[in-house]
Amino acid sequence: MATIETAQNRNRPIGVFDSGLGGLTALKEIRAILPEEDLVYFGDTGRVPYGSRSRETICRYAEQDMRFLLSESACKAVVVACGTVSANALEQLKRHYTVPIIGVIEPAVEAAVRSSKNGKIGVIATPSSIASGAYTRALLAQDQSLSVTSAACSLFVPLVENGFIDPDDPIPTLTAERYLAPIRDAGVDTLILGCTHYPLLKPIIQRVLPHVALIDTGMEAAHRLSILLKEEALSCDGNSCGKGTTQFFVSDEPQDFAQAAARFLGLHPNAQFPIVRRVNIEAY
Amino acid sequence: MATIETAQNRNRPIGVFDSGLGGLTALKEIRAILPEEDLVYFGDTGRVPYGSRSRETICRYAEQDMRFLLSESACKAVVVACGTVSANALEQLKRHYTVPIIGVIEPAVEAAVRSSKNGKIGVIATPSSIASGAYTRALLAQDQSLSVTSAACSLFVPLVENGFIDPDDPIPTLTAERYLAPIRDAGVDTLILGCTHYPLLKPIIQRVLPHVALIDTGMEAAHRLSILLKEEALSCDGNSCGKGTTQFFVSDEPQDFAQAAARFLGLHPNAQFPIVRRVNIEAY
Repeated sequence: MATIETAQNRNRPIGVFDSGLGGLTALKEIRAILPEEDLVYFGDTGRVPYGSRSRETICRYAEQDMRFLLSESACKAVVVACGTVSANALEQLKRHYTVPIIGVIEPAVEAAVRSSKNGKIGVIATPSSIASGAYTRALLAQDQSLSVTSAACSLFVPLVENGFIDPDDPIPTLTAERYLAPIRDAGVDTLILGCTHYPLLKPIIQRVLPHVALIDTGMEAAHRLSILLKEEALSCDGNSCGKGTTQFFVSDEPQDFAQAAARFLGLHPNAQFPIVRRVNIEAY
Repeated sequence: MATIETAQNRNRPIGVFDSGLGGLTALKEIRAILPEEDLVYFGDTGRVPYGSRSRETICRYAEQDMRFLLSESACKAVVVACGTVSANALEQLKRHYTVPIIGVIEPAVEAAVRSSKNGKIGVIATPSSIASGAYTRALLAQDQSLSVTSAACSLFVPLVENGFIDPDDPIPTLTAERYLAPIRDAGVDTLILGCTHYPLLKPIIQRVLPHVALIDTGMEAAHRLSILLKEEALSCDGNSCGKGTTQFFVSDEPQDFAQAAARFLGLHPNAQFPIVRRVNIEAY
């Protein structure tokens, strides 16, 4: 029985969820390093953004997202591809569910500590992520002598969601310069992009902070997932499962999601996007 | 019995709802011209913004907002202080409820037609309001010879909600210049601010379009409400009710709302804000 149970576990998909589109940057990294795994993505597009909501509301929404992935797709592991949920609700989710859950904070924090030479690390994220103090706590838990400078960038998610990502556009550039001024003044050599939307602003952020190493939370979470699957013997066996499929679910209009998602996944605008299905997330 | 029924109706509060904070600009106008009426405001801060969501989701949220106001406060009339709901869900709400319902589109459209000398009218609103075509249809229903130019300003609500409203700030100014370029090029003499958030950007919009008359949808809806109450004999009698109270309800953290609401209502930052209560809107 134990062997069958293990085989069943291995052959289940990996769940990935986010408040909306941002988690697709993590999905892209997971797909790149685990091409054979089956993935299920849920984006809560009917209630995005989470980053300006209260902790209580974020926790309630995260529980519903989790219940959907586990009850409908029986995922073998879940990546919380949302900085806001990782900062506010991860411990609660880990207490309530036995499936392995990977947030975006710990992997990014460890990568930042490895990267930094001068011990000065910056964190940018949504207002609720910064207010939670989760990144700063996790960094100081690694090394108490670190100097951490954080900044809430409330307008970055709307900028990304509305396509203001051209590096030559003064609107996102001026916004980045304003938000990043305290980060630059602090002399950090490493900056955690603490929201999965932010990789789309990487060229702009890098131009404002030319000599700073940028840590992509989605990429680090994908690497952590890859290690965890091997450690827990949960990697797909490549026979009965593991066709590298990706299923997409959202809580608002699927067509609107498909159009914007292609941009986040770096697909050609004319590429055929997989079927996106709608979920009544409030029922979970 | 009829007399008692009428008296009961007159003595009930007026409901005002919006996706979040924007409707407070309408509430402020209603309070100014109807100082004696009791008002109940609901802001769906747990699910704001509506303007980038699908029509189906907007209709579902609007029905819940309406059911809350009618079941908890038995409102005698409801002002839909949200351009997005007015554009997408007003007809549906009017079919489902017998209470008088006032949206923000018709009053603004009539004011714009009265204001325009050259027959060229502009409309700015959220993407879903513009996509609905509701403003253009309502304008052309008044006068088929009108020339209507509309622009979806997707970043205006996030700018306002995050406090980017200083007329000397280049970020909202550059954003306004970009969105308003087609409106300016069209030579309009009147512009409908088709979202209740936009009055907070009025100084910036007016600077970009110095000779254009700006129509404030909340102000026009307040005037329409005042006329309707008189016509339907629903004005409060000033005895048993009509103490000019305002109750506030939201679907996310009340404390966060109170802080931002003071800005929308033009209150002094140190002024005492009334009690704000929380509603589980998904249960309605």
